[in-house]
Amino acid sequence: AARGMSRLPVVPVISSGYIHASAEKALSMLGIGHEVVRVLSSDAVGRIDLSALEAALVALKGEPAIVIATAGEVNAGGFDPIAAMVELAHRHHAWLHVDGAFGLFARVSPATADLAAGVELADSVIADGHKWLNVPYDCGFAFCRDARLLNAVFGMNAPYFPPTEAEHPDFLYLAPEMSRRARSLAVWATLAAYGRNGYRAMVERHVALAKRLAGQLRTSSDFELLAEPRLNVVCFRYRPEGVPQDELDQLNRRLGQAIIADGTVYFGTTVYAGKVAFRPAIANWRTTERDVDLILGVVRRLAEGLRSQA
Amino acid sequence: AARGMSRLPVVPVISSGYIHASAEKALSMLGIGHEVVRVLSSDAVGRIDLSALEAALVALKGEPAIVIATAGEVNAGGFDPIAAMVELAHRHHAWLHVDGAFGLFARVSPATADLAAGVELADSVIADGHKWLNVPYDCGFAFCRDARLLNAVFGMNAPYFPPTEAEHPDFLYLAPEMSRRARSLAVWATLAAYGRNGYRAMVERHVALAKRLAGQLRTSSDFELLAEPRLNVVCFRYRPEGVPQDELDQLNRRLGQAIIADGTVYFGTTVYAGKVAFRPAIANWRTTERDVDLILGVVRRLAEGLRSQA
Repeated sequence: AARGMSRLPVVPVISSGYIHASAEKALSMLGIGHEVVRVLSSDAVGRIDLSALEAALVALKGEPAIVIATAGEVNAGGFDPIAAMVELAHRHHAWLHVDGAFGLFARVSPATADLAAGVELADSVIADGHKWLNVPYDCGFAFCRDARLLNAVFGMNAPYFPPTEAEHPDFLYLAPEMSRRARSLAVWATLAAYGRNGYRAMVERHVALAKRLAGQLRTSSDFELLAEPRLNVVCFRYRPEGVPQDELDQLNRRLGQAIIADGTVYFGTTVYAGKVAFRPAIANWRTTERDVDLILGVVRRLAEGLRSQA
Repeated sequence: AARGMSRLPVVPVISSGYIHASAEKALSMLGIGHEVVRVLSSDAVGRIDLSALEAALVALKGEPAIVIATAGEVNAGGFDPIAAMVELAHRHHAWLHVDGAFGLFARVSPATADLAAGVELADSVIADGHKWLNVPYDCGFAFCRDARLLNAVFGMNAPYFPPTEAEHPDFLYLAPEMSRRARSLAVWATLAAYGRNGYRAMVERHVALAKRLAGQLRTSSDFELLAEPRLNVVCFRYRPEGVPQDELDQLNRRLGQAIIADGTVYFGTTVYAGKVAFRPAIANWRTTERDVDLILGVVRRLAEGLRSQA
């Protein structure tokens, strides 16, 4: 922080194909650069190749490195095997960061907690309150195991600031911002209102809704479920009989635009294992079975409209 | 952004002693480091030494460098000679950044616009809406002359994002954040309500209030005005007869704590040209002569309380 990254060796950063674009953006901003990221996937979906990770860490011979594990990958809610990655990273003196923007909330239910097992051993973890915690944007959390390190980057001195060595560290010295909007009020209020059990119930209800939608997709001949939902994201595409494989991507992309324009349900498209697909993420406390049960009918209706135009 | 700062030469950063701690913090976070900053002051207050700046830029022989000019320095509202610094920086191929968190607002009144003359030639400028624009924290603005450069740092690609090459660039690719809270609504509302003339009137009123307080200080034998106010910050200390010079810092520091505890008026202490001092900044639209006229009486009353205890 004092002397910057100049003249230092490149910082090795390793992740699975689950890495989120915002992690790359953060690396760009921090002067590490996003081109240094080595993505070690074992398949087209992006699953980590643990042997390749181990080989890469061994090859570094104990030099500093950053390993990024993802809890709740953005396309289909996939999870990296965090515990195994932490174990490898720490054995080879690397920093293990968990991007748990969505997936950290898996920990509130015993039914899904295993997905993010090992997160408690990470060196740093981020999560978003403005997603599953249902508080307004922007409300991210960053946890750092060794809080003293934060002061090296974010600490500062000025004659009109309180001392940095105070018994209770000032948030001024723990994050980029120097002042604070009262974001914590909304967080406190919702935690006070719902608590651990309330959030457990909400997460379990959303996971059940995702499974319900997955079940509907599995029994529909005109849809393809692309990944078994791990949490609250359902990744699928429209695949009616009679449409050639090489036209499915374009059809689903146009359908995605029609869904947004129609507005009855709302979700965007992505590319999952090379296929253009939809990825509804169920996170709003008001979402019910009735909402989820609308989805396939709406997509079918819009698809018929598109196909009759063609 | 792609390859980071690693293995690159150190980035030279030059400023006056007016540099704000947040600029150093930003340099720490960006991987440039804050130790690289060369402060070229010509006096204890921090005024830029233009000859030293020129010599430093000449010595760089056209290598990339960043020059930071401050508009509205935090202790006494001082201004760097922006036009002269821009001219020097650009002649030597350096980037000229203006920290105008407070001072950019000097431009709305012809009476103070000259203080920030040349700001329109800068390569980048920041200002805070949550100060003189009277909108809630956090609402900063960053202006960059060549907007295409922003995409190199903040641009990103993901299958579920809109294209980066769209005709109207998405804010997603222009700043650190990926989504946006509706901060702009408050900014739009206040600009629509007051407009250029409304803000001109507000700035002129606040500058007049600062000069009024300075006048009261100049005619009070127990206070010392430490800098002629340039804008809305008045830097002064309590200096009653009979208190030795070497006790004034401690007296003013204790007095600062008493002012905060008392709560009738609110301002913190700083260190200006080596002296512990107060720095009320007048920026709230509701502040009137009545509020400003309270200040010296309150400080005197609290000082008498402290001295009678001693």
